[in-house]
Amino acid sequence: MKELHRTQVTIVGLGLMGGSLAGALRGRCRSIVGLDRRPEAVEEALARGLLDRGTTDMEAAVHQAGIVVLATPVRTILRLLDTLGPLLPADCLLMDLGSTKREIVAKMAQLPDHVQPLGGHPMCGKERSGIEAADPELYRGRTFILSPLPRTSTQALSLGRTLTRAVGSIPLVLEAERQDFLAGTVSHLPYLLACALVSTADATTSKDPAVWEIVAGGFRDTSRVSAGNVTMWMDILMTNREQVRKAVAVYQKKLSDLVQLIASEDEAGLQAFLGDVRAKRLEMFP
Amino acid sequence: MKELHRTQVTIVGLGLMGGSLAGALRGRCRSIVGLDRRPEAVEEALARGLLDRGTTDMEAAVHQAGIVVLATPVRTILRLLDTLGPLLPADCLLMDLGSTKREIVAKMAQLPDHVQPLGGHPMCGKERSGIEAADPELYRGRTFILSPLPRTSTQALSLGRTLTRAVGSIPLVLEAERQDFLAGTVSHLPYLLACALVSTADATTSKDPAVWEIVAGGFRDTSRVSAGNVTMWMDILMTNREQVRKAVAVYQKKLSDLVQLIASEDEAGLQAFLGDVRAKRLEMFP
Repeated sequence: MKELHRTQVTIVGLGLMGGSLAGALRGRCRSIVGLDRRPEAVEEALARGLLDRGTTDMEAAVHQAGIVVLATPVRTILRLLDTLGPLLPADCLLMDLGSTKREIVAKMAQLPDHVQPLGGHPMCGKERSGIEAADPELYRGRTFILSPLPRTSTQALSLGRTLTRAVGSIPLVLEAERQDFLAGTVSHLPYLLACALVSTADATTSKDPAVWEIVAGGFRDTSRVSAGNVTMWMDILMTNREQVRKAVAVYQKKLSDLVQLIASEDEAGLQAFLGDVRAKRLEMFP
Repeated sequence: MKELHRTQVTIVGLGLMGGSLAGALRGRCRSIVGLDRRPEAVEEALARGLLDRGTTDMEAAVHQAGIVVLATPVRTILRLLDTLGPLLPADCLLMDLGSTKREIVAKMAQLPDHVQPLGGHPMCGKERSGIEAADPELYRGRTFILSPLPRTSTQALSLGRTLTRAVGSIPLVLEAERQDFLAGTVSHLPYLLACALVSTADATTSKDPAVWEIVAGGFRDTSRVSAGNVTMWMDILMTNREQVRKAVAVYQKKLSDLVQLIASEDEAGLQAFLGDVRAKRLEMFP
């Protein structure tokens, strides 16, 4: 398998994640080819200097590719995996950037033998989506999860690591099931909480015009992720239903405990709960 | 009633909020006197140049004060209101910075006739507390809620407005009950959600050391407010129990609805819910 600087990288999906990856890889590989079904996205990526070549044709895009990165919502990745395999050159490393890994890795296992599959999930993003929001610094300093399959060769995993480091990320090898469990709590659960919070405010306080003047940083930060791309989040939630369900169940119990401590005026219990949480949060983010 | 620049302002409680207020008022009033029961806090405030005079003696602190601002947790404010009234000079404006207003304003109604009471709640704060975290810019650009009583004179309210503008805030007159309803949803509810989220992660994923490497911006922002001062939050929750209970009840229903849409794979319903939330969030914070 070639080294990165002698490899053509083809990026499928020129949105925030794919466009940012292209920008971050510029000058670090032989060439960057971008594919999107929307000609406007291809043209915008070319105009921004993110690509050496852009196309809407799948076969033309993956021709001579040493690495293909799928940078679309999760269920589009699943559909692409159904058709993409036979088109890929021998020994091609096929990665993805999807936020859930179990279903993707299971489908990657069905790829033709000449392909080297590797699940990927960079821990970064933005509320704004699309090529217009692309930022070559998006991946810098972030953990980039890699979920290899039993069939993934040592060389293919090594090339995957090299790519993550080339964009400034820190690679972390994590089995797909374990990644979906962890992401279910630290990423997918916060999204649902934020959505339920905005929906609550919309149903109650938003009737009072004064609320817009008093909304402070607490609400803004707690609700931030709810502005994310709906298609991306739909795919995440629908492909991680079981882990999300479990995480929400634990969460609902914790919230009920808190409410009960307040209602029963159990101040010692409430203080202990809030004190533990504060200590844990300070440990998480010193 | 005197104008601000000819008025001595006494600040009771030299923590984050009181210390920041002192710094922001520097040069905009005749003198700033600071009171704290802890001599170290008084010394630190003096060393930072936030005060003209500092003391741990209540009578000495309020002597000749034209404005007294109570900058302590809510239930300390309630206790101070029991004893402070008779010590205050005639026509003294007595304000507070407490995050809930109903109980405080009810107690302010019992103050001796020679005092002018005015509830206050600046919509700003930080996770770090104490005089060490004081920042004269803390109030700049933020809404500063004022809850006058029927007995509050026009001049007293006007002086209160002048003070809020002097520190860079935008005054907003709001009746105490209405402020507690709104703050219950846009401030106190987010705190409880953040606490339940951290507690959930602590009970489940924190057992896996990899979680510390994949925690991304979503979790960090959604959980930020949970690191706030526990005493302050205890007082807020215990003095706004009914509004908090109502807000959590609506919220729990919204979260259950979301979970049900996911579990039943009602994709059209889920997409409509998430799309509405996203549109509302973008309307709130364009």
